[in-house]
Amino acid sequence: MDKKSRAEALIAQEKAALEAWNQGNPSGYLEIYDRDITYFDPYHEKRIDGIERMQALYESLRGQVRVDAYEMIDARVEVSEEMAVLTYNLVSFSPGEVMRWNCTEVYRRGDRGAWKIIHNHWSLIPPPSK
Amino acid sequence: MDKKSRAEALIAQEKAALEAWNQGNPSGYLEIYDRDITYFDPYHEKRIDGIERMQALYESLRGQVRVDAYEMIDARVEVSEEMAVLTYNLVSFSPGEVMRWNCTEVYRRGDRGAWKIIHNHWSLIPPPSK
Repeated sequence: MDKKSRAEALIAQEKAALEAWNQGNPSGYLEIYDRDITYFDPYHEKRIDGIERMQALYESLRGQVRVDAYEMIDARVEVSEEMAVLTYNLVSFSPGEVMRWNCTEVYRRGDRGAWKIIHNHWSLIPPPSK
Repeated sequence: MDKKSRAEALIAQEKAALEAWNQGNPSGYLEIYDRDITYFDPYHEKRIDGIERMQALYESLRGQVRVDAYEMIDARVEVSEEMAVLTYNLVSFSPGEVMRWNCTEVYRRGDRGAWKIIHNHWSLIPPPSK
């Protein structure tokens, strides 16, 4: 697969995981997280390391999320032989709430050719109030 | 250079850039940003793309930052032949203020063997207030 096709495949994979997430189903992300995943989001004081901790976190959120619509803005992928990075801005529309996110995902090509996320960083815009 | 040495070199390079930054000098980061840098921080509504925009942003901050001490927590590096990702938690101590950050940096090996940052994502903990 050439770089352009790989980039398109990673974006399609991300959209599928995100659309499941928006319906309260974290399985899409859990299936594409590597066992060595490291993870940042705004709700945890420290980085979360490892698939077991991510499974525990995401299973605790199963059924809790409802996002009716989203915009993936300016998705960009840099691909090498073994790694890739996907970045984009996300706007999520829920009843009575609009959230704006920065998203970074780093992928590694596994032994069997599957590309899995080894790092995921979500942050909210605007910045924290003091 | 083996993976462990590469990881140590990237962490050392990061500390040097961060320590310059903490004294109000952005040149350390600008020198290790790739021309294709993409960048997220909590103060901008969208991703910033390209070295020219980063130069403009960071030069506008020259002399504005003063951080007296910092802790780099749990720095972790994943390295492949052509790319690497460094993640850590950062605590920055300024007069009257403590800031807690999540940091992601993605590196790409350039044609001449120099490792440069192609993506940088900074976010603040805790999350934004509404």
